[in-house]
Amino acid sequence: MKAGQSLAHTSVTRVKDGDLSADLSDVLAVEEPLEIRVGLRVNGKIEHRAISITMRTPGADLELAAGFLFTEGILKSPDQITTIRHCGIPAKSGSLQNTVVVELADSVEIDFKRLERNFYTTSSCGVCGKSSIEALHTGVKAVVDRDHAKVPSSLIHTLPESLRDSQDVFEQTGGLHASALFNTKGELAIVREDVGRHNALDKVIGAMFLAGEMPSSDKILLVSGRASFELVQKALMAGIPILAAVGAPSSLAVELAAEFGMTLIGFVRDGRFNIYTGKPRIS
Amino acid sequence: MKAGQSLAHTSVTRVKDGDLSADLSDVLAVEEPLEIRVGLRVNGKIEHRAISITMRTPGADLELAAGFLFTEGILKSPDQITTIRHCGIPAKSGSLQNTVVVELADSVEIDFKRLERNFYTTSSCGVCGKSSIEALHTGVKAVVDRDHAKVPSSLIHTLPESLRDSQDVFEQTGGLHASALFNTKGELAIVREDVGRHNALDKVIGAMFLAGEMPSSDKILLVSGRASFELVQKALMAGIPILAAVGAPSSLAVELAAEFGMTLIGFVRDGRFNIYTGKPRIS
Repeated sequence: MKAGQSLAHTSVTRVKDGDLSADLSDVLAVEEPLEIRVGLRVNGKIEHRAISITMRTPGADLELAAGFLFTEGILKSPDQITTIRHCGIPAKSGSLQNTVVVELADSVEIDFKRLERNFYTTSSCGVCGKSSIEALHTGVKAVVDRDHAKVPSSLIHTLPESLRDSQDVFEQTGGLHASALFNTKGELAIVREDVGRHNALDKVIGAMFLAGEMPSSDKILLVSGRASFELVQKALMAGIPILAAVGAPSSLAVELAAEFGMTLIGFVRDGRFNIYTGKPRIS
Repeated sequence: MKAGQSLAHTSVTRVKDGDLSADLSDVLAVEEPLEIRVGLRVNGKIEHRAISITMRTPGADLELAAGFLFTEGILKSPDQITTIRHCGIPAKSGSLQNTVVVELADSVEIDFKRLERNFYTTSSCGVCGKSSIEALHTGVKAVVDRDHAKVPSSLIHTLPESLRDSQDVFEQTGGLHASALFNTKGELAIVREDVGRHNALDKVIGAMFLAGEMPSSDKILLVSGRASFELVQKALMAGIPILAAVGAPSSLAVELAAEFGMTLIGFVRDGRFNIYTGKPRIS
């Protein structure tokens, strides 16, 4: 990660025991909107369609866009993309480019209808909630291990320290989530940071997706915070069999992990952890 | 908060020093989707329109829906609402109701066009990003103190402990964010918890909104985690002059707070804190 994009300098007053310091220099994690668009050929011309706006930390924007489109079930393989690039002219010199366009091959068809989670009208009330919960399913499949390798519990304990060692910006700002993929020997394959936990994971998955390394069925995912439904869903889209979180999982994260055969681990810290689902993968 | 809705029981295996425990009982923070709808009279019949789906912790659903509609700039005052209620039949006996409908008075007009952040088409590329950033503005206004009262720094130090004392579910699960409003004497007015930090804040603001206590220009807001752009934006919509966070602020949170005259404080813990903007309100 280029720290120059991810860090902003600010002036701060520190307060301790009633004493206010003079103005001091400090660093912040950068948060900026990113608009993700797809470009489609219509009547011979490329037209853009905005899919999402996410508040993200700049850096790995192309991976974030690709990962988002993959984990939302919109794209299946990298050969559906012809180009992926920043788009537009920054508002002022030196400012960030906050739009990414993913131009798609002519053969790709997108079900925009399915994506329109918002703004549908219904006259019936009897099935309230059903449509919304169905809309949350992006096409996750059960996790299938290629080799059913067991991972020793001692390896799980080592993951947070490996993550911290590579997490530069968090150390400086205390303001970023991280996601990291490890192989089954506990070696770090890739790590990404973001103010949004879902963005950090989309960046990791997007990098694997663009490199043609999907599904990630021989990897362990570690996330720096809590494990939500959304993180489990994204990890399942990538075929990751083991998700470990430094924080707590939610009820729906545990339910989804159980339903699709994922191993979900929480509170990986201080030499302990909890296994919520998929215990047979841990020895 | 009714703990029965907010907590789920699960079975867990604890691991320490290579030892796996027998199955133990544990509790999780509940995460479930909530669909927020508005009900409008069209040709004499009430029609529903889905505005948002959010992953939330059940409890204070009506406050959450009202707070969301207010902080998104969709509603201005509680008299625009005729009824607000859960809607539909749960999928199975005893399961949760995951849809809230907010029925609006006939006089209320909603600019649905402005809400459609997603799915607009553009042929031009030169202004990329401009539309998205404009869409993020929900109508925030500069903070105006009624009395310009100064808050002593010693009072800020006391806020996290007051919050923790009232935060039951977090203690049990480690899985919830909290938002709390205090008066300028440091007395807790209201606290709400949620798996999503934005939901916890929408619940707090929704409770004040429904009680007709807006703007909250004599209150101090404390959030349990980090301060993002979105939290500053919501607090500004509610007219809250001081936002204190236990965690770090992001760059855009600081920019927005500075632009609109809010006092933004971070890292309120261990007898210290940092003032990022609006120092004159702290003595």
